[in-house]
Amino acid sequence: MSGRIVCFGELLMRLTAPGRELLLQSPRLDITFGGAEANVAVSLARFGWDAAVVSTLPDNAIGQACRGELRRHGVDTRGIQMQHGRMGLYFLTVGAMQRPSEIIYDRAGSAFAVADAGGYDWSRLLEGAGWLHIGGITPAVSANAETAVIAAAQAAKAAGVKVSFDCNYRAKLWSDRGGDAPAVFARLAACADLMFGNERDIALILGADFHTLALSERFLAAAELAFRTWPGLQRLASTIRTHFDVDHQELTGRIATRDHRVHYSRTYKLNGIVDRIGGGDAFAAGLIHGIDHGMATDAAINFAAAAAALKHAVPGDANLVSTADVMSLVNEEGLDVKR
Amino acid sequence: MSGRIVCFGELLMRLTAPGRELLLQSPRLDITFGGAEANVAVSLARFGWDAAVVSTLPDNAIGQACRGELRRHGVDTRGIQMQHGRMGLYFLTVGAMQRPSEIIYDRAGSAFAVADAGGYDWSRLLEGAGWLHIGGITPAVSANAETAVIAAAQAAKAAGVKVSFDCNYRAKLWSDRGGDAPAVFARLAACADLMFGNERDIALILGADFHTLALSERFLAAAELAFRTWPGLQRLASTIRTHFDVDHQELTGRIATRDHRVHYSRTYKLNGIVDRIGGGDAFAAGLIHGIDHGMATDAAINFAAAAAALKHAVPGDANLVSTADVMSLVNEEGLDVKR
Amino acid sequence: MSGRIVCFGELLMRLTAPGRELLLQSPRLDITFGGAEANVAVSLARFGWDAAVVSTLPDNAIGQACRGELRRHGVDTRGIQMQHGRMGLYFLTVGAMQRPSEIIYDRAGSAFAVADAGGYDWSRLLEGAGWLHIGGITPAVSANAETAVIAAAQAAKAAGVKVSFDCNYRAKLWSDRGGDAPAVFARLAACADLMFGNERDIALILGADFHTLALSERFLAAAELAFRTWPGLQRLASTIRTHFDVDHQELTGRIATRDHRVHYSRTYKLNGIVDRIGGGDAFAAGLIHGIDHGMATDAAINFAAAAAALKHAVPGDANLVSTADVMSLVNEEGLDVKR
Amino acid sequence: MSGRIVCFGELLMRLTAPGRELLLQSPRLDITFGGAEANVAVSLARFGWDAAVVSTLPDNAIGQACRGELRRHGVDTRGIQMQHGRMGLYFLTVGAMQRPSEIIYDRAGSAFAVADAGGYDWSRLLEGAGWLHIGGITPAVSANAETAVIAAAQAAKAAGVKVSFDCNYRAKLWSDRGGDAPAVFARLAACADLMFGNERDIALILGADFHTLALSERFLAAAELAFRTWPGLQRLASTIRTHFDVDHQELTGRIATRDHRVHYSRTYKLNGIVDRIGGGDAFAAGLIHGIDHGMATDAAINFAAAAAALKHAVPGDANLVSTADVMSLVNEEGLDVKR
Amino acid sequence: MSGRIVCFGELLMRLTAPGRELLLQSPRLDITFGGAEANVAVSLARFGWDAAVVSTLPDNAIGQACRGELRRHGVDTRGIQMQHGRMGLYFLTVGAMQRPSEIIYDRAGSAFAVADAGGYDWSRLLEGAGWLHIGGITPAVSANAETAVIAAAQAAKAAGVKVSFDCNYRAKLWSDRGGDAPAVFARLAACADLMFGNERDIALILGADFHTLALSERFLAAAELAFRTWPGLQRLASTIRTHFDVDHQELTGRIATRDHRVHYSRTYKLNGIVDRIGGGDAFAAGLIHGIDHGMATDAAINFAAAAAALKHAVPGDANLVSTADVMSLVNEEGLDVKR
Amino acid sequence: MSGRIVCFGELLMRLTAPGRELLLQSPRLDITFGGAEANVAVSLARFGWDAAVVSTLPDNAIGQACRGELRRHGVDTRGIQMQHGRMGLYFLTVGAMQRPSEIIYDRAGSAFAVADAGGYDWSRLLEGAGWLHIGGITPAVSANAETAVIAAAQAAKAAGVKVSFDCNYRAKLWSDRGGDAPAVFARLAACADLMFGNERDIALILGADFHTLALSERFLAAAELAFRTWPGLQRLASTIRTHFDVDHQELTGRIATRDHRVHYSRTYKLNGIVDRIGGGDAFAAGLIHGIDHGMATDAAINFAAAAAALKHAVPGDANLVSTADVMSLVNEEGLDVKR
Repeated sequence: MSGRIVCFGELLMRLTAPGRELLLQSPRLDITFGGAEANVAVSLARFGWDAAVVSTLPDNAIGQACRGELRRHGVDTRGIQMQHGRMGLYFLTVGAMQRPSEIIYDRAGSAFAVADAGGYDWSRLLEGAGWLHIGGITPAVSANAETAVIAAAQAAKAAGVKVSFDCNYRAKLWSDRGGDAPAVFARLAACADLMFGNERDIALILGADFHTLALSERFLAAAELAFRTWPGLQRLASTIRTHFDVDHQELTGRIATRDHRVHYSRTYKLNGIVDRIGGGDAFAAGLIHGIDHGMATDAAINFAAAAAALKHAVPGDANLVSTADVMSLVNEEGLDVKR
Repeated sequence: MSGRIVCFGELLMRLTAPGRELLLQSPRLDITFGGAEANVAVSLARFGWDAAVVSTLPDNAIGQACRGELRRHGVDTRGIQMQHGRMGLYFLTVGAMQRPSEIIYDRAGSAFAVADAGGYDWSRLLEGAGWLHIGGITPAVSANAETAVIAAAQAAKAAGVKVSFDCNYRAKLWSDRGGDAPAVFARLAACADLMFGNERDIALILGADFHTLALSERFLAAAELAFRTWPGLQRLASTIRTHFDVDHQELTGRIATRDHRVHYSRTYKLNGIVDRIGGGDAFAAGLIHGIDHGMATDAAINFAAAAAALKHAVPGDANLVSTADVMSLVNEEGLDVKR
Repeated sequence: MSGRIVCFGELLMRLTAPGRELLLQSPRLDITFGGAEANVAVSLARFGWDAAVVSTLPDNAIGQACRGELRRHGVDTRGIQMQHGRMGLYFLTVGAMQRPSEIIYDRAGSAFAVADAGGYDWSRLLEGAGWLHIGGITPAVSANAETAVIAAAQAAKAAGVKVSFDCNYRAKLWSDRGGDAPAVFARLAACADLMFGNERDIALILGADFHTLALSERFLAAAELAFRTWPGLQRLASTIRTHFDVDHQELTGRIATRDHRVHYSRTYKLNGIVDRIGGGDAFAAGLIHGIDHGMATDAAINFAAAAAALKHAVPGDANLVSTADVMSLVNEEGLDVKR
Repeated sequence: MSGRIVCFGELLMRLTAPGRELLLQSPRLDITFGGAEANVAVSLARFGWDAAVVSTLPDNAIGQACRGELRRHGVDTRGIQMQHGRMGLYFLTVGAMQRPSEIIYDRAGSAFAVADAGGYDWSRLLEGAGWLHIGGITPAVSANAETAVIAAAQAAKAAGVKVSFDCNYRAKLWSDRGGDAPAVFARLAACADLMFGNERDIALILGADFHTLALSERFLAAAELAFRTWPGLQRLASTIRTHFDVDHQELTGRIATRDHRVHYSRTYKLNGIVDRIGGGDAFAAGLIHGIDHGMATDAAINFAAAAAALKHAVPGDANLVSTADVMSLVNEEGLDVKR
Repeated sequence: MSGRIVCFGELLMRLTAPGRELLLQSPRLDITFGGAEANVAVSLARFGWDAAVVSTLPDNAIGQACRGELRRHGVDTRGIQMQHGRMGLYFLTVGAMQRPSEIIYDRAGSAFAVADAGGYDWSRLLEGAGWLHIGGITPAVSANAETAVIAAAQAAKAAGVKVSFDCNYRAKLWSDRGGDAPAVFARLAACADLMFGNERDIALILGADFHTLALSERFLAAAELAFRTWPGLQRLASTIRTHFDVDHQELTGRIATRDHRVHYSRTYKLNGIVDRIGGGDAFAAGLIHGIDHGMATDAAINFAAAAAALKHAVPGDANLVSTADVMSLVNEEGLDVKR
Repeated sequence: MSGRIVCFGELLMRLTAPGRELLLQSPRLDITFGGAEANVAVSLARFGWDAAVVSTLPDNAIGQACRGELRRHGVDTRGIQMQHGRMGLYFLTVGAMQRPSEIIYDRAGSAFAVADAGGYDWSRLLEGAGWLHIGGITPAVSANAETAVIAAAQAAKAAGVKVSFDCNYRAKLWSDRGGDAPAVFARLAACADLMFGNERDIALILGADFHTLALSERFLAAAELAFRTWPGLQRLASTIRTHFDVDHQELTGRIATRDHRVHYSRTYKLNGIVDRIGGGDAFAAGLIHGIDHGMATDAAINFAAAAAALKHAVPGDANLVSTADVMSLVNEEGLDVKR
């Protein structure tokens, strides 16, 4: 590994209805903690990385429990500041069959959202880092968070730390905030070495329109435009997901590189999905791992897709599997009980 | 809506083995409340209707809990009388794969079964009603209940309240009771505007035999006979269910109308069924809703089938989804996580 | 009963750590719904009253679940408006022995707090009411809520509806808001027929100091001052609670009347407390019930204290016992298993 | 031991609200199996006896689960016949503090109640038996059961098998049935070697009145009358229970013998009761064990009282402790963690 | 049945992560008891056999609970000795999708492993037996266990008791122990009437190589060699399992007989597997049942395969279905809810 | 703080029967992790210390989960080596009333017990340490562990790191091992600055007999002897525990210092104990904290006793309260709900 990875973003407490019940159908909620960037950190920590989360949590028992959960998975939490405020929450009803999963966000005014952007000392926080991972949800949260994430990206770029940027465009959050997503995303992309997004993301940021192209050509066209626009950007990656129903899907990874090619992973059938949340974050962690370990592009995208597929078999937001688990799937080592 | 809907029938407490365990494999039972007609009422209440249940419950903590559960979903329970007696029970072992679900009924001598038929004041209970929904289980329960349901149907017809009658033929209950199902069903059908049943039900009631016809022609033939027999009957509907295994099935709705046609719904693949109980009641509620809202027959049967499909993704006996949920499936608005 | 009771205040979702665990020690939370005024409504509904809650809830699955829970207990929820916004929450860690219970509030910006005071049509909402029950938490929540509760109290007084006002002074909420508790409480007390508070509350509102008096004389002195200040006020009541430890306490009720006397209830030993939250609301409901049913003052205060004692044996915020349960304790009918 | 013990009576499924919740407050019930005589059998089996239950169970999954539960504890179930019918049920709400526990029985028409008295072949069932244990609930259940239990007692007496008879008088069951408890009890007592009952039971059976005597003299007087009336009776025993509240009680055992004495056990403080059901059955099992093992009367009554005390610390109906556990309490071997 | 069946082998406590969680992801483990040979005994007891387990368990609460669990299912446990020592454990993480299930064994030094081989009195233990069922895990456990199982097999053969031997080859256990699996298996096979194994097992034992043959011919070739080598062996059987993913598999049974034929069962699609552990043991029990009941070979192998398929729908190690359940599947009696 | 604290000892997985059930009464176990020295580390980490655990864990999912649990509470786990082997286990049945709690140990042959003593590099592990905390269970585990703990103590003493030694004498473990506890304890005490033990421990180690003295004089006499024997020893401390029953006890702390005095803490009534395990470890952590923070001896012993008392209100082995929680009890800040 080229060093530690620093993941910056909001942490959320997830409150999930048990099994396949509707929300509050019975009087109990199962609790996990997540957050797009923290999910990447946990996955990389389980892969053996020195992974750190930088964030702001409320200085109460909930914030402490969240920090403890990250520590439990081996994530370095020294970059998390505990401040007065509330925890961002989301309530999850897990769908089934033709009934989609539903999320109710209750994250406004969280300790992270109101934290002063100047409170993060990036030169210290990025010390020894090989990568900074950020995402597009963060600037959607609040003006403070937008300022903070841009500062982080620029500090990383200035310090020679590679930036991984996952667009994770959430229209509703941006419209609630009244923010200018394309402009912000462009500033972040300009710092990125690795970007997670598809043709719709590139179209949004750069005002392009790829609908005139055949479906199969759009991603490459978007990547080419991205590479022309942002000279530092080396790779653009995303997943293709097909829904047969809520529990039965298919997933393929793809990555465009500066050699004018798109590399596709094997396609994984996802039958009997256990937990779909965090699949994209698991993909991001897998790709960062593959790239950083010097895998060939085909190997890296296969590793990332296998990691993402396995996430769907793991309860909770974060991908708790090991690199051995991922390689076992990549190498088709068999599915019988391991004794 | 053309008014409130009144649903008359027995309420049951369901005691379910957790997960896919056999009954009492571990020392715990999960409790829900149901009953064919109450399930229709709950579904319609969730659709926004003014839905009432008329029934008899034991005047103890169990009966109160059952009444409370109906109230919770917004059902009007003022027509439920609390009397000395016991609650009707059923124990459910949820099957899996090639192991069928099993029900042990323990409903004999319930407060509902022994309630005096004269205790229901139908002129008051049907006040303001647009619909009365009844089913064929009720007269199978006891002679008192048979008297009561016939009185209800006839009072409704006399008062211009539309009657929806779901055959729900249960051979075992009828033979235990020694009742005359065909004769009773004929009296109820004679009051009905909308009837739920298939060619086997019509054959049972009217002594007809449709086996000489091609499979695809039987339902229409049965409907034509029904329409000739019962001049007030406007529609005959049922579902077609194919079992691949306990967890994987297919469901199609169909409805025959007086224009000599059968309308079929889209076919839904039910893969990874969460809870199969109450699927028929969800279909009935969906169809009543569609018809009452003036949907074209094709739209109504599609709404009903989609409602029935969604029920299979909802734990418990009753369909807790909203009309928006049903329309989202009808309109194929996508299965990804709703945020 | 002199009519229905209308209870106005915020509803909260309570998220409780299981058993005696610390918050999030294991990844699960048990959910109940409460709120001081709603607790009074539920208790009175269980006593057989026509009890209504007026409030504002978020128009999502959480708000619907809360409304459903009130309905389940027979509370009239037609006065609850569903609006865009969030649910007020509180996280409860149940203490034990020498470890106190702890509450983390997360209620800022709730749908109730931001609801327009003008949205409540009090002339319609109070129709047929014999009582309005309000509390001192409501004006502490937000300026909107303060306006609303004062309007409610004044509308009730004008309409001849008796007002029950529970001070429930929460210093932290008032200081967070920057509101003027004494002034607001004085306006509410001026409308009240029945007030729940002790000498500290009266001292706070009226700037008096009772410390120069013997401990046993302070409550009467406070009551006398209150009666002189607010001519409409007929009764001042509160509980005296002694803590031996978190699970072992003692509770006595007392009530001052305009005949210059304080009536004390029997003292209940609370050994092995199941759930202490809502004890005061149970006391309020018990006293309103006793007074409205024309009990003599001694009988009423004993009924109220017994109701409050029983609440400590009931999980959740609301007192779910019946009047028969309370009378059984008042009459010392025995504690052996009831068969 | 003088041989095996045969316990005859109805088995019941207990459905308990979790923790200290009210019945159906949350949608789950915890399941155990019990029955006064079966509880004695289980306790004696755990003490090392060859203990058999004779009864009738429904021939479905519920009856099988009940039979399995007895087997699990080492009880011989070959004397249990499986017949068409239903399982007797009781719903238990565990009380707390000043809120008493409540039981709702739903046992009418059980397979046991309707079983033909002639179906029990007592000469075969009592083979090798040293003791037959029966109780007063059985004849209260149905006329068939009354016939059966009298036949059992008389067969035992004829065969020289000692009879232990626990009055367990349940006024409500007897009045529902319209049976003549005193006459039936007298016939059973006439066969008994050991009888469990207090002065109220003897007064009921023999029409005596002990109220003119001092409280402390009544039990001896009742015993003396019993011994005069039934020449075969050797011992009359019962417990004295003081309720401070539902969770805090005191228990003393006492036994009268033909030497005109009453022997009292040590008094056990029962603070923080876990499960009070079956305390009397545990006492009966303990006393039978003590007597049969030739303990002196003082030792036997102390063993029985200690067994009964320990039962209150064991969840479920039956006393699952060993003789070593009982002796450890009798000998005051200490209460610290056993490692 | 030709008599009772005696099953000899180690009992294990299984500690399973709940649902599809990773091991210790949440702080709870679900407990069941199993062991290859005990699973066969439980299944046969549920089929109505007089089935006994011979084994050694620790003389503590864990061993007693294990023994109780066998009793609960009607297994004769009088041949189980309770000795000082520990219980063999295994921790199970149930897989999902592309994530395989994982087992961590913790069975070294168990009471069974260290028990003296001479402690089993086979002439007494095999009294009245028609069958002895043993497996290849037992000799892999320890030298003592190897001695014991060989003694058992030879005693059975000498006494005319049929021996059923399931190879269950576990390479890791054998290499840990340093034992000579082929030599031991040959000694056991020499006693067997019925053997469970495939071509790889026969190759291992007899040093043969079937890879030069077409895939479809290997099993018959192996069986022919086995029949030539062991003159007492009448049947060789095994299952063929195809993994699509962890939850979706296919299963076929096959059996070779001395008439130079291989009989194949119907193939069962296993979609949505509930619990895969013990599938082979269920197959063995099914086949023993079929053979012993004189079913034709095709019927027997179909019965066995159907039993094995149903096991995948039953939580826990043992197949708890009845012969009626198996025949219902064999006869395709339908998968709808049984009422 | 004078630096970090290093705690050396075995980690155990605790498997607890739920609630007050007997072991395996229902098929579930609740999991926590503990170990006397780790409990001290967790408590000190929650108090804000830089606390490290040095130990050996199995390199499987169980060992990883244990390590994760320590991390979660902020303990530095870099000194834990992961090696092939098994996890030490203990099964806990929580007692109630007169039924004592019971522990079944299953820790023989654990990865810790078999770990090579030379594998711990004490000069590195003690870097920056102010304290080393060790206990008397460690040398009882195995000869390797005895060697390791003596090496640790001597390395600490040599390096000027203060040694805290908790005797924790377990007769059964020592007799199983055949070790010489007095000799080993003497070597450890010779290194200690702070020792936890009572007069029985000193008598055991030094062969003294204090029974001739009055009960109240024994502890001081023992301390004086200890101080004379081990010149480096500054303090001897222990708790006095009175058992009224399993759930109701009293606890007092005491400490002897070189000024010939014994200081006693306030006595805490422990009524309704939640979890008694780890009370002594909580006391040790509290005293180390108090001493290291320069509290006066009376203040330190009161802090330690209050910490120990609070532990009884916290589920699990470790004391999860904060210093603020302890000081709130010491300062009697009240037991009402903290809002």
